[in-house]
Amino acid sequence: MPSPSTTATLLIDCPDRKGIVVSIINFLVQHYDVNILNADQHQDVELGLFFMRVEFSTDAPHFDEAAFRAVFAPLAAGFSMNWRIAFANAPQNVAIFVSQYLHCLADLLHRHQTSEFHCNLALIISNHEAARPLADFYKVPFYYLPVTADTKSGVEAEQQALLAENNVDLVILARYMQILSPAFVDAYPRRIINVHHSFLPAFSGARPYHAAFARGVKLIGATSHYVTEVLDEGPIIEQDVTRVTQNDQLPSLIQKGRDLERLVLSRAVQWHLDHRILSYANKTVIFA
Amino acid sequence: MPSPSTTATLLIDCPDRKGIVVSIINFLVQHYDVNILNADQHQDVELGLFFMRVEFSTDAPHFDEAAFRAVFAPLAAGFSMNWRIAFANAPQNVAIFVSQYLHCLADLLHRHQTSEFHCNLALIISNHEAARPLADFYKVPFYYLPVTADTKSGVEAEQQALLAENNVDLVILARYMQILSPAFVDAYPRRIINVHHSFLPAFSGARPYHAAFARGVKLIGATSHYVTEVLDEGPIIEQDVTRVTQNDQLPSLIQKGRDLERLVLSRAVQWHLDHRILSYANKTVIFA
Amino acid sequence: MPSPSTTATLLIDCPDRKGIVVSIINFLVQHYDVNILNADQHQDVELGLFFMRVEFSTDAPHFDEAAFRAVFAPLAAGFSMNWRIAFANAPQNVAIFVSQYLHCLADLLHRHQTSEFHCNLALIISNHEAARPLADFYKVPFYYLPVTADTKSGVEAEQQALLAENNVDLVILARYMQILSPAFVDAYPRRIINVHHSFLPAFSGARPYHAAFARGVKLIGATSHYVTEVLDEGPIIEQDVTRVTQNDQLPSLIQKGRDLERLVLSRAVQWHLDHRILSYANKTVIFA
Amino acid sequence: MPSPSTTATLLIDCPDRKGIVVSIINFLVQHYDVNILNADQHQDVELGLFFMRVEFSTDAPHFDEAAFRAVFAPLAAGFSMNWRIAFANAPQNVAIFVSQYLHCLADLLHRHQTSEFHCNLALIISNHEAARPLADFYKVPFYYLPVTADTKSGVEAEQQALLAENNVDLVILARYMQILSPAFVDAYPRRIINVHHSFLPAFSGARPYHAAFARGVKLIGATSHYVTEVLDEGPIIEQDVTRVTQNDQLPSLIQKGRDLERLVLSRAVQWHLDHRILSYANKTVIFA
Repeated sequence: MPSPSTTATLLIDCPDRKGIVVSIINFLVQHYDVNILNADQHQDVELGLFFMRVEFSTDAPHFDEAAFRAVFAPLAAGFSMNWRIAFANAPQNVAIFVSQYLHCLADLLHRHQTSEFHCNLALIISNHEAARPLADFYKVPFYYLPVTADTKSGVEAEQQALLAENNVDLVILARYMQILSPAFVDAYPRRIINVHHSFLPAFSGARPYHAAFARGVKLIGATSHYVTEVLDEGPIIEQDVTRVTQNDQLPSLIQKGRDLERLVLSRAVQWHLDHRILSYANKTVIFA
Repeated sequence: MPSPSTTATLLIDCPDRKGIVVSIINFLVQHYDVNILNADQHQDVELGLFFMRVEFSTDAPHFDEAAFRAVFAPLAAGFSMNWRIAFANAPQNVAIFVSQYLHCLADLLHRHQTSEFHCNLALIISNHEAARPLADFYKVPFYYLPVTADTKSGVEAEQQALLAENNVDLVILARYMQILSPAFVDAYPRRIINVHHSFLPAFSGARPYHAAFARGVKLIGATSHYVTEVLDEGPIIEQDVTRVTQNDQLPSLIQKGRDLERLVLSRAVQWHLDHRILSYANKTVIFA
Repeated sequence: MPSPSTTATLLIDCPDRKGIVVSIINFLVQHYDVNILNADQHQDVELGLFFMRVEFSTDAPHFDEAAFRAVFAPLAAGFSMNWRIAFANAPQNVAIFVSQYLHCLADLLHRHQTSEFHCNLALIISNHEAARPLADFYKVPFYYLPVTADTKSGVEAEQQALLAENNVDLVILARYMQILSPAFVDAYPRRIINVHHSFLPAFSGARPYHAAFARGVKLIGATSHYVTEVLDEGPIIEQDVTRVTQNDQLPSLIQKGRDLERLVLSRAVQWHLDHRILSYANKTVIFA
Repeated sequence: MPSPSTTATLLIDCPDRKGIVVSIINFLVQHYDVNILNADQHQDVELGLFFMRVEFSTDAPHFDEAAFRAVFAPLAAGFSMNWRIAFANAPQNVAIFVSQYLHCLADLLHRHQTSEFHCNLALIISNHEAARPLADFYKVPFYYLPVTADTKSGVEAEQQALLAENNVDLVILARYMQILSPAFVDAYPRRIINVHHSFLPAFSGARPYHAAFARGVKLIGATSHYVTEVLDEGPIIEQDVTRVTQNDQLPSLIQKGRDLERLVLSRAVQWHLDHRILSYANKTVIFA
């Protein structure tokens, strides 16, 4: 009886030099007799870096992460690769953090329900009760963890315990209005996605719509990015904009912005879940 | 014999209060028996300001700026109006300043030749010789005025003399890489339009494409704005963006940006020439 | 005791001639001492038509539709106007028709809940049970009315009875996959809004995403429009597009399209509810 | 003494099956010791087709088209490939056809002058004299070949003779208002690029802006495509759109459209010159 076919995605970055592509392709063919479904690569000429994403299927038996790691290690070491492999049959566990604005959450939940996202939506954490009905409707466990200046570090410990219990791979900040501590952020490198309601780097920080309105911009934007220690400075994943005019006073500008927030956040989540994002030098490479 | 019909545009801003619209409309009808071609208005609710643009035609004899000014003054004073009137049969005189990048200049010249712009292109001033062939081809007088740190104030005096001689109404900085002095800028309030090669307020100042590339943005932009004393801080007239990916290394990003620069600058020029822009509080109202 | 202030919107279209604007403005001021909040106008030069939208507030007592109609009639007749007036304190009754694709419905319900739409969501009608849980969650009455070729006319009678009972002003077809009969459409002129999943007039009719994919377009679109007797031929209210590449096989193209459908439908609904749309000659004028 | 490095691009399409990528990569490495600069691939799942673009450099001596063709033929035959190879040091010869609207021509000439396009602009052919001054200014040979119904086939013979003399690789129809005969089109398969001033397939044929205006669309578009025997039905290369409102009467709509035409045509030309386009089943794959 043939083993069932397995699909996996290999992501690599390393110093650019001759022979990488052929070495990787030959490795995969020789060891696993793969069928290559997609192969994308990118060079940063200035920094001399090479990036590759290979999506492939194989009927090889004994194809799991540990086995692959063992045989791929020498090649990876030879090229000084950073790399990871992800298996399509292992959906990631996702947590959503949200405060009282629910438009991104409602959008994410609907997309998950209609199978746009291939993941396990493990839990929702909020410092407000507002999201509970939506969480209940979509049958996602909801945790109400209010935060004050005094309780913040304790609450973060609770949050991290919940993430650990649920083996969470990805945290989505869907308009979560609390700033996570550096320690929290460090625990999930390139695994926390935030949506900021401006076209970064313009209007970073608080109340970006108010700032955009005051500056009189003709387009407003939204940005999804990985969270790093410095607020709103992490690698940008996706951005979009929409036109505003003098007819858009602040409330209308905020309403138009909500549509952008939904779009840029959902695209970032999808690309992350599909292992399409590589991050380096505070930038992202999107193999879309 | 009937007088020929005259078309004019009246632009007004004043504190918002009841009765402005009806007063203006009735004034125009009673004094000049006008046919209203377009009437646009805008309120800034927060600041309590009212803005209006009325485009109208009239067969009334003796309809010129001086006569209008005399009869309109009491009404304007009653509402504390800032206002101006422009006559369609009096095209504005325009000067273009340019350095060595000629894409915006070539675009403006072609648009002028094909009658997109209703103006008199009086002269081109440059600190480089590069633009001379284009100026000659399109038969626009060209002045080569090189600038060094030492000669700058003298050159500005020459430039202003040329503008004065030509009764220049509007100065277009089409990638002119010199910073004008505050005195120069003050002499042409809301009458100098610049194009900046970023989505302001992001990446103001020098080398914005390099900065955008370094930050890893997913959209690059360009901005046209009125020049004020503070560099890149004047009222924004128009902005546009285009998508970039990791495949766009710096040269490609710069090339894509040039298309944006042409578009946002030409739209700003057209709106200005058509008297569609009101400016206040470092913003613009565009009656497009 | 002063009467409370009333806000209303007057929409007019008529043959273009001199004196319309001043007549309307003076009428409103003299009869109701109005404060004009917004006045927009448009001319179709080719067809010689004039369009106006005036939003105003008044403290006048006895200001209701019947009274206004009585005093405005002579002026309206003099200019051969089509016109209507809408009062801000009278929210419209809205019905949503939907089949088994729920993304537009979920979006509309969330926007209504967060007060983006100023209306009374009276009922949801569907030929499938799929929408019931969402309807229940958002507490909107749900009617399951399955349709077959044989039962169609009977079902339409039921649908119309429900609309009549609920005094429905606007019907939204949120991916309702049944074609309404001409008699139904005639009963709600310019009061049925549909979303079509293509950039009309391209790919009208069935399976537009399949057709777009087969043609190899580089942008896909969506269109919201008023429904008329001829399928997909009614006046277009809003359109938007998004970029696709060879990487977008059909499922991805459909997913991207859903985002467009939500946007163009919600904008059309909002503009209709705010009385910002005039329709003529199978076009729309949007006073946005 | 080492031979100088050569850069080339290999474009392939063939039935999709296992082993293509690895075979091609290994071939290039083994025969020419290449350094792969870029490798992009695409599958059309539905049609079972595979597409690949490999850009590489090599220091191998004796690397020219004839030599490559000889050694690559067996592999190509084994996979039933359509393929071609292009060398970066061999710029293509380009002809531009234009009538009396010059905006696309002016744009192409400026881009060529500023080195956006890597090609030899061999000649301009027009059925009007209008383009001659621009051709002279940019020093491109200009041929005035007026066309009437009677002279058309004779003129086409003259045009083809000029193309042959100049070894023209690519013909750009920059708003050339004559329809080429099937025989002409057949002589340059996938080597004639046209710009159509609508968002195809909407408004194919004559006067698309008039048709778009009459239909009341909210976005207008432009399309660049390869010319095939059926007018406006060839594989689409690029499309773009811009927003219009009721304020855009026909002249304004045409003006906005010109900006789109320039953009979509110049992008198509650039991608073609960079060997980034594969065409199949009346579609294009763009490796951008």
